[in-house]
Order: sequence, then structure tokens, then C-alpha cells
Amino acid sequence: MLRTAIVGASGYSGAELVRLLSGHPGASLEAVCAASSAGDRWEQLYPGREHLFRGEIRPFEPAALAGLDAVFLALPHGASASAARDLRGRVGCVLDLSGDLRLPDAATYRRWYGREHPAPELLGEAIYGLPELFGESLPGAELISCAGCYATVTQLAAAPALAMQGSTTVDVVVTAISGTSGAGRKADLALSFSEVFGDLRAYRVGHHQHAPEIAQGLSRYAGRELRVTFVPHLAPTERGIAATVVLGGQELPAAEDLLGAYRRVYDGAPFVRLRDPAESLPAVRHVAGTNFCDLAPVVDEAGRSVVVIGVIDNLLKGAAGQAVQLFNLAFGLPEIRGLLPDAVEGTA
Amino acid sequence: MLRTAIVGASGYSGAELVRLLSGHPGASLEAVCAASSAGDRWEQLYPGREHLFRGEIRPFEPAALAGLDAVFLALPHGASASAARDLRGRVGCVLDLSGDLRLPDAATYRRWYGREHPAPELLGEAIYGLPELFGESLPGAELISCAGCYATVTQLAAAPALAMQGSTTVDVVVTAISGTSGAGRKADLALSFSEVFGDLRAYRVGHHQHAPEIAQGLSRYAGRELRVTFVPHLAPTERGIAATVVLGGQELPAAEDLLGAYRRVYDGAPFVRLRDPAESLPAVRHVAGTNFCDLAPVVDEAGRSVVVIGVIDNLLKGAAGQAVQLFNLAFGLPEIRGLLPDAVEGTA
Amino acid sequence: MLRTAIVGASGYSGAELVRLLSGHPGASLEAVCAASSAGDRWEQLYPGREHLFRGEIRPFEPAALAGLDAVFLALPHGASASAARDLRGRVGCVLDLSGDLRLPDAATYRRWYGREHPAPELLGEAIYGLPELFGESLPGAELISCAGCYATVTQLAAAPALAMQGSTTVDVVVTAISGTSGAGRKADLALSFSEVFGDLRAYRVGHHQHAPEIAQGLSRYAGRELRVTFVPHLAPTERGIAATVVLGGQELPAAEDLLGAYRRVYDGAPFVRLRDPAESLPAVRHVAGTNFCDLAPVVDEAGRSVVVIGVIDNLLKGAAGQAVQLFNLAFGLPEIRGLLPDAVEGTA
Amino acid sequence: MLRTAIVGASGYSGAELVRLLSGHPGASLEAVCAASSAGDRWEQLYPGREHLFRGEIRPFEPAALAGLDAVFLALPHGASASAARDLRGRVGCVLDLSGDLRLPDAATYRRWYGREHPAPELLGEAIYGLPELFGESLPGAELISCAGCYATVTQLAAAPALAMQGSTTVDVVVTAISGTSGAGRKADLALSFSEVFGDLRAYRVGHHQHAPEIAQGLSRYAGRELRVTFVPHLAPTERGIAATVVLGGQELPAAEDLLGAYRRVYDGAPFVRLRDPAESLPAVRHVAGTNFCDLAPVVDEAGRSVVVIGVIDNLLKGAAGQAVQLFNLAFGLPEIRGLLPDAVEGTA
Repeated sequence: MLRTAIVGASGYSGAELVRLLSGHPGASLEAVCAASSAGDRWEQLYPGREHLFRGEIRPFEPAALAGLDAVFLALPHGASASAARDLRGRVGCVLDLSGDLRLPDAATYRRWYGREHPAPELLGEAIYGLPELFGESLPGAELISCAGCYATVTQLAAAPALAMQGSTTVDVVVTAISGTSGAGRKADLALSFSEVFGDLRAYRVGHHQHAPEIAQGLSRYAGRELRVTFVPHLAPTERGIAATVVLGGQELPAAEDLLGAYRRVYDGAPFVRLRDPAESLPAVRHVAGTNFCDLAPVVDEAGRSVVVIGVIDNLLKGAAGQAVQLFNLAFGLPEIRGLLPDAVEGTA
Repeated sequence: MLRTAIVGASGYSGAELVRLLSGHPGASLEAVCAASSAGDRWEQLYPGREHLFRGEIRPFEPAALAGLDAVFLALPHGASASAARDLRGRVGCVLDLSGDLRLPDAATYRRWYGREHPAPELLGEAIYGLPELFGESLPGAELISCAGCYATVTQLAAAPALAMQGSTTVDVVVTAISGTSGAGRKADLALSFSEVFGDLRAYRVGHHQHAPEIAQGLSRYAGRELRVTFVPHLAPTERGIAATVVLGGQELPAAEDLLGAYRRVYDGAPFVRLRDPAESLPAVRHVAGTNFCDLAPVVDEAGRSVVVIGVIDNLLKGAAGQAVQLFNLAFGLPEIRGLLPDAVEGTA
Repeated sequence: MLRTAIVGASGYSGAELVRLLSGHPGASLEAVCAASSAGDRWEQLYPGREHLFRGEIRPFEPAALAGLDAVFLALPHGASASAARDLRGRVGCVLDLSGDLRLPDAATYRRWYGREHPAPELLGEAIYGLPELFGESLPGAELISCAGCYATVTQLAAAPALAMQGSTTVDVVVTAISGTSGAGRKADLALSFSEVFGDLRAYRVGHHQHAPEIAQGLSRYAGRELRVTFVPHLAPTERGIAATVVLGGQELPAAEDLLGAYRRVYDGAPFVRLRDPAESLPAVRHVAGTNFCDLAPVVDEAGRSVVVIGVIDNLLKGAAGQAVQLFNLAFGLPEIRGLLPDAVEGTA
Repeated sequence: MLRTAIVGASGYSGAELVRLLSGHPGASLEAVCAASSAGDRWEQLYPGREHLFRGEIRPFEPAALAGLDAVFLALPHGASASAARDLRGRVGCVLDLSGDLRLPDAATYRRWYGREHPAPELLGEAIYGLPELFGESLPGAELISCAGCYATVTQLAAAPALAMQGSTTVDVVVTAISGTSGAGRKADLALSFSEVFGDLRAYRVGHHQHAPEIAQGLSRYAGRELRVTFVPHLAPTERGIAATVVLGGQELPAAEDLLGAYRRVYDGAPFVRLRDPAESLPAVRHVAGTNFCDLAPVVDEAGRSVVVIGVIDNLLKGAAGQAVQLFNLAFGLPEIRGLLPDAVEGTA
């Protein structure tokens, strides 16, 4: 039984971690920490989940967590890196769900996050956590920077087509639509029900901090420098991201070759489900509440482009679920442990 | 007082036409027709609007409408072209809100609409109705094919940037998010509340019938052949479209030059509002219930692209409102008549 | 042209007042005031309405408004009464949309609002503004306390049946469902989209400040002391209230007699629409965006009760619309001026 | 391992049964049947759940199910009773989720369901399935009529207070708000997203078929004849019911005595959670996705009434979850099996 704790357990990703780890057959949840609500009972914040977990929320004190096998940081960016620094060496593995450790250097962080990096000495130290594309270094990892929500679904959607197209494509266009939970649990007029209801809008166009993360990851995967235009949108729903990736290029693949390329890359990946667009397309409803990423690659004849549709639950495959998947891989557990039944039942 | 009628008055666009024409200072609404609900009272279908209009829904009989100044067709595609044919010559002007008369020839129609064109002799006869970009032939027009909802916002968003970029761009990427009212008023499991709530999804990827309309219009405006990738999405809201247009290109304009180009094209256009993206971005909430199209052109440095955000109310600027705007222009009325107060009041 | 101003113009009710008064044929809007956003431009808070009104938001200074014909106070309770006190005598009429002046004495106010009354000398001075039931004192009124949103729809729904039943009923049960805009424009975790989406809940059970207002108004109308159980609920929508009033009693009326009683009471009331429940029932969609209150009285044979269903738009008939209706009546204008077209057009 | 099947597996309650039974440690799911989609693959209807169950949907043939331990009928009323008749004697236990077997006689059924009963010989044969209040006859039951969704939450909310009040109360007022999934999976204009979004409305006032079920159950529990006024409402959400029960009466209990009565009745009931209204109130968000019913009894001093707030997930505690709970009790399994983890983990 691996002993774990969660820092930032009062937020939405943190609460999903509580749910997943409290039911994980190979893990025990030893402590839940959060600065703002320290002293409260966790089940009073999440009364619907009191049957899953009850416990007092503690302030974050690194020494009190010393000796644990794994600590999950579900903190806002800016606060997370220093917590990671304080825990390193004291616990077996730190899994950071924030964006603090995803970019390569302090200057890039400053440009996109608009602040000085709180622990620049950690940059370059963390394993980037997107297991289907970059899984090789995970076993035994001591510091993992979990991929961002938009970055996860975008990279999973784009990577096989980029690899297939060789060097012809350099421009990647990504638009994505998210529900409100991605913005976190907070009082904010712009996120109030009366403001979001009935609205659809793009936000942070040209300035979203996942843009460089996506460009960096896809360039690494494809082995060439890519330019990424990333436009996030907010829609009036709570959970999920629908991402649409468009790749131009000189030669269009045949639809079956394209789908075949995806099948090869994700062969054996338990959380990627491929849809043949001739039959159906992914939808957020199909992945909400799960760790799945559903993908469908489409050949758009009229546009002379490849369009890939991807959907995830931003709090699970985009945050807490992926963190548990990474935890499983780091500690040599089956990848699906605590995230799926170990076997699927079915009749003829 | 111009005498008008609406065919297809039981649907959502038709009901918006009833609202607009019943309050239009220069028009009288002489008849409301609809096949499926003929014999019913219109105000029983729309009890919230009984203070605006009361009347019996009649079956569509072309002869009964003879002599009217204008007839608006808010019918499904496939049913609209034959109604237009039957009315031509009998009434002053036919305004067709369907897609039946937007494409250039029967083969293109067959490919994208999946059926034989019901009145191919009309193809090429109708004036395409998107007044901000193609307004010159509207005065005196006898047959107007109103631009589609996605096609309206996309062309308004893309045209100035395409014209500015000269011949460098040939690939246009458009993604758009729509509420459910665009699919019309009908019983359909896929559009039921229980299925749409909480969902986000792309649909008809590579197959939507507005793709060739957009490509045709933008190519005409820009004066060169463009390729358009168009990906529509459905979001859990009732009204509005948020469209995002991405244009690659060798040289990026300066932000102020880009915004200046938009200001020049839409100078004097009462229903286009430009937003400086350094200050704010368009949102569906700002245009819902109005005939406005709000636009913001953004220079995306990281992606080396121009991104233009556009929003409309799909039932107004994307359908009924634009039809009334076209009606005004065809008959020489002020463009805003019946759509906006004639003057805007304000204090210091 | 009556000269008016709005204090609290940055909130949702205030913004509806701006919309209504800027288009009112008999009023000019001379100033918009708000403490929190003084110095901002109003149209930057409400960019979708910049075609209706543009102007700088000023701090509230009573002297600067001296001499105006009417001032509308759309302030939170607690802040409104002192503003009313400072304006009295300086302007022709003060219309207070808050709850500060609705209850009879400071002790009752303290019990239900949980604070000391800020201007107890005004209690008993204001005319209670619910024109369909208590309209006689409105012409020439100098201080009007507009009825609350829940209190408006509940009293309109209950009054005729209570009057009809003579002295047999003393217990009134009211449950009501509201959208989120009733809580005002503010940053509040409990009202954030992620918390409200998918939720349904009762709140302030036994403690809502509209309970005594309803009991007081209905007792006054019915001429006997009534006990009211009032249970408000929050639902995931922005606008509107659906209220359900249940009255027990020894003898059930016939359905046609019940409906007849409602027709008599609301004969000539332009904003009350009666629905025969044998044909249709009220729905928030039918009144959203309007000043109407739709009502349907039902005889429930199995429950031996009278059930009355009522719906309003909480920001209009429940706030800004009713305030303009009261303004019209206070100044001798037609009741519907600025709220409805002066005449309704229709064909046979 | 108990062998089970589901008839009506394509609807929302049926799909929840598939989810629950496919993961139930003591049950195997041998067949899924549905008339309308026979021949299709179940996982194509519910692609988001293909990791839980895959199988072909078969037509319902009673002989093919002979010998199974339990068959769940998730059929529309009118179709369910004849299926129950055809299965009786052939399988160990039939659990009917429809309303067909809940009322006492054919005349009552005709009055409220508006049709002749399809198998009147079964009336009075079925055990009524609401285990917290009527659990004594469940072990070994061969035909169970699961309580309706509104009826479940209402009876759980009202019963302890009614029992406590002795013979003083005869009038029970119930209003309830439901999401759309209660109406089932179907194409219906009135349930389309565009019609439900932004709406709130009461429906079937005085005519809902759960009214007599509630009156019958509460009268049986309280031991005296009660009159129930029941008013259901539809709100724009997918899942859940919030019910509000108001009981008048000569003497009001103290708040702690009232809560104490609820604690006694539900002591040991694993799916009823009591909330002290001085601390918090139930909310649909807290029970969505679970088999819990959360309750809070409130003493309303001003109204001289007891108000009880109750919430459930209509597809779980109101349908599929309760059916599995009843299945567990009928076969002597732990009540929570397949519905909750067998133990709850927590730290200090």
C-alpha cells in the first residue's frame, strides 16, 4: 500500500484526487492539505462525497509529509513550484498538476505566466507527464510535471498525424472549448452563472499559457520545430474539453491510412479510444467522469487538411485522472489501477 | 407601408421574423404560413409573443400571396426553392433564408446537400444576401438568397484580413460553436435536452453545407481561390455562434494595421462592431437578441497567424435579422429600420 | 420629458433600468450612478448594450441629482434606505427597488434582514408598489417601495383566490424557483457556474426576507391574518421565477368560477395574462424579457386544494419593469409606456 | 453469482442498470433487451460506457430469459405489466421500474394513467419497493414494483414527520423540481434543448400519476387517510429531483425533536443522509450519480409548518439504483452491494 497525500485538496482537481485515491486499491490517502480551508473538514466542502472520504484539512507543512511515497500538488501555478521544492527528497515522488514545471526556462515562464518563476532551479528537472506520448522515463520518476488539460488532448490528437506527415507541416491550428471547471473553484464575477449562462466566447487569444506547452511537446514528438496557433473558448458547461486540431499539408492521406496511423501509436494505450469518423465522432458526454481521451482523425477533402477531434474530461484525463495514471506508472502498478475496473465484463 | 408575408412562420427563424416584421415601422405582416401547423393560431405556438402578433397560420398557397411586396421563406432547405419558384413574378421580392439558392450549380448542391436540387433553373438567379460585403446589387432585388448563419459570421470575420494579405494566404481554417436553435424547431433525440446538456462536440466535420458557401464567398471577395476547412461544433446553449478564423501567412501585420483594415471595411456598417482585442473580445452574450456581429482581429505572434473572433445571434444576424436588413436595402429603407432605434440616446 | 437617473446602474436590475429608460418615449436618462464602478463607462460593463446607452458612471451624490423628476434606486438592501432619505424632497419621486422600505417597522426588518434599519424614519412613509393589487395611491407618489420579485409573483398568484375563499383559508404555502440573476451581479463561489450547473436546491428555508413581505401584502389584500410558508429554490438558469401557491380550504371552487375570479381582478391589467389550465400552463420562457406575469389557477381535486401557477421575469416584472410601470402610474403616463408597443398589430 | 437481465436497456434507467449490474460483485448480466433497438450493439448507443459493457441488444422473448435469477423491467408504463406477467414463474424475481404495478386497482390506474391496465390480475400481487419505509416483505420477493422517482423522495421526506404528528395533519403539500432525464430518452419537441433551456415550469398540475402513489404510500405509513397536493416542475438540468414537502399542523415540534425523529426512522438506512438545516441543506449536486437521498427537516416558525427538503438522483435512487438495492434485499445480499464501496476509508 503506497502512502499518499494531496496538497490543494479543496479545489476541483484536488477533490477528484481525493475521490480517486480514496478508492485506489494500491494507495492509502494519509493527508489532505489546503491553505485556505485548513482546519475545516473536507467532507463539509464536498458533502456529496462524504461516503468516500472524511478527514480534516491540514495546512501544508512539508515536514509533516516526510516519508510518504507520493504527494500530489493540485495548487495554482505560482504556488506549486515552491511546494515541490520543499518536498523533493522528503517523499518518494512529487506529482505537480500545475503549469509551474512544464516550460523549459524562466524566461519562457515569465513571458507566458506573467510572473517570475518561484523555483527556477527545478526547471528541467521534472519528467513531463503525458504517458501515451512520453512514457519512457516514468518508472521510478521522483518529480513529475503533469501535462495541462488543453495540452493533453491537443497533443494526443495531433501527434500521430504530425509524425505521419513527415516534414511537410509546420503550422498547427488548435481551437478548443472548455467548461468552467478548468478555471478552478473560486469566486469570480466572470465565472458566475449569470455571466456564463448563454455565452460562448474565446479568451486569452494569443496569450494562453498552454500554447508554448503544446508547441514544445509536439515539436519534441515530431522532431521538428512547429508553430502552434491555440485559441481556447469557454462554453456554458461544467466539465470537459473538445479540441479541434487542423493540419494543412501538401498531400492528404487516405482516411484509412490516417486512422491506421492512430491505431498504431495508441495500440495498447488503455485510455485512448479511437473513433472512425465514418461511424461516429467523439463527444464530451462520452468521456465525462472518465480518464478516457476519445479521438477521431478526419480527412477534409475540401479544405485539403487533416482535422482531428479530441475530447477529455479536463478534471480527469486533463488533471487528476492523468496524475493517478502517472502515479501508477511511476510506481510500477498497472496503468489502469484505480481508474478502471481491472477487467471488463460483457455478454455476447 | 410595404405588405409582407412569412412562409415557415412556426419555426424559430420564422418566429423571429414575426417579431421583427410585426414591429417594423415600414412593413405590415399580412399573412403567416406554415405547412405543419396550418389552421392553428400562431400565438398558441408562441404564447410569450401574443402581445406582438396574433393570427391564424395558413397553408402556403402562392396565389393567395400574389401582389405582396415581399415574402420571406423560412423553410427547410429542399422545400424552399420550389416555393421561391412559385412566388417569383407574383410578389415584389422573395427573400429565401434557406440554403437552396446559395450554391452555384446543381452538382455542388447535390454533393453538399445530398439531394437533387428542387428548382435548378433558379441557381444563379438570386442575389447573395450578405450586405456588408456584397451589398451593391441589393436595391431593387427580386430574389435574395440570405447568407447562412455560419457563413455570415465567418465571411465578416475573414474578409478584411484576406483582402489585406494580398495573395499570400490560400488556406483558411474556421471553427465555430453554435447553440441548438440553429438546428431548428423539431423533435430529434440528438437535440433533446438530456443529450445536449453537458456535451460539447464537433459535427459534420468535412461535410457541412456551409463550407462551400464560405469558400465561394471568400474567394469572390478576395479575388483568388481559397481553401476553407470548416469545423462546426454544438454547445449546450440555445442561441448564438462564436466563430474563430485562423489565417496563416508569410508576414504578420501589426495589430493596429490589422484593426485599421477592419475599420475601413466596416466603416458605416451599422451592424458590425469592432472590438480592439487589447481591450476586450467578442462574446455571444453581447449580441444575443440583436442583429450585431462583433469582431476582433488578433495577431498571434507565437502561431504566426491572424486570428479573427466573430460572434452573432444565429437567429438574427444569421437569419431573420439579416433578412429584414436585406429587405430594407432592397426597398430603399434605412438599413436599421425595424432592427434598431433610429437614434441612440446617451448622456455625457 | 421626465428627467430621471438610476443609482446602482452597474447591477442587473440597474442595467435593465438603463435599457428601459433609454428607450422610454416619455423619459430622459440624465445620469447613471454606482459606487463600485464610478468613473467607468457604463457601456464597457455592458458592451452588448452600447447601442442603447453610453455614459460615464458617476458616484452617487444626492445634490447632483436635485431637481430630477424621478430617481430609481437599484441598490442592495441596507444601502438603499439612506439614499432614499438623502433624495427625498430633492427630487420628484424616489423609486426604491430594494427591500429596505417594504416592512412595517424596524423590529421586523431586524429579524428578517439581520441588521439595523438604516433609516427607520422612512418606514411607513413609502407607497408599496404592486400596482395590480395596490394601485390606488400611486398617482403623485413621492416615495415608492417596489415589491420584491418573489413577493410580486406570489401575491399576484394568490390574491384573487384568497379573496374568493372568504375566511376559510389561513395557511398559504408558496414554493418558488428562481434563476441566478436574482442574487445580483457579484463574485460569489456559491453562485459560480461550476457550482450552480446541474444543481437544484432550496435555500434560506424559513428565513427568506420575502416571507414577511408576502404575508403582510396578502393579509392586507384579503383582510385577514394569513400565515405563509415560503420556500425559495435556485435552479440553473439565469432569469425568471416560477412560483406555485397552494391554498387549502373546506370547499373547492369550480374551475370556471376560479378562473372567473381571476379574470375579474385582473380585468384591465395590461401585464397580467391568465392561462386556462385546461389549455396550457405558464412557463418562464413565455415571460422572459417582458414585464408580464402569466397566471393559471388550478383546482386540484385529489389534494382538495387550489394551486396557482405564476411566472415572471425577476429582473423585469420583479424589478426594473415594474419600477417603470410604477413610474408611469406615479406620473400619470399610460401604464405600458416604454414597456410595450402602444398598440398590438395582428392579422385575422 | 446471480444471473440477471435487463429489458428496456436502451433507455436512461436501463443504461444505469447496465452500468450498475455490469459492476455488481454478486451479479452477472446475461442479456440486454429492448424492442426498438434490437439487433444493435448496446455500446453503440452508449459509447461512453463501452468499457463497462458490450453486447448485442436482443428483442424481448420471455422464454429466452427463463431460469434467470432476476429480470429488471425498465419499460414505459403500459408495456411493463404484460412483460412482468410473461416472466412470472419463469424467473426468480421480476423487478418492475414502471408505474404499472404501483396502484391498487384497475380503476385508479385508468384514472391516472389514462389507459386500461394491461394485466390487472397482477395488481395487488407486487411488493411495493421502497425499502427504507416498507422493507419487511422484500426477502424472497418474486415480484417487486419499484417506487417512482417523485414518490421515493417525497415519501422518504414526509414519512417521519407525519408519523410524529399523530393524527393532526391530513393535508400534505408537495412541490418537486426534476431534470429532463425523468421523461426518458426520446425525440419530443417539448423536451428539446431549445425549448427547455432557460425555462422553468410546472406541468401536469393536478394530474400527475405519482400523486396517488404518494398518497397511498404515506397513508399506509402514517396509518390514516392523507390528502396530497403534488405539483411537479421541470427545470433545465438533466438529472435529479429536489422535493419540498410542507405539513401544516396545530403544534410545531422543536427543531431538535424533529431531526431526532428522522434520525430514529433512518437509523441504519445506508442511503439516507440527514442534514441538520442549521448547518446545511440538501442539494441535487450532492446526490447526482449516487443512490443517496439527502433530507433536511425544517421548522418554519412564520408559516407554522414543517418543511422537509429532499433530493435524489432520479435515475438512481429514483430508478435503477433503488432497483439494485431492492434486488440485494430480495436475495439476501448486503443492501449496499454494487452501489457503494463496502467500506469507507478516511484519515483522522
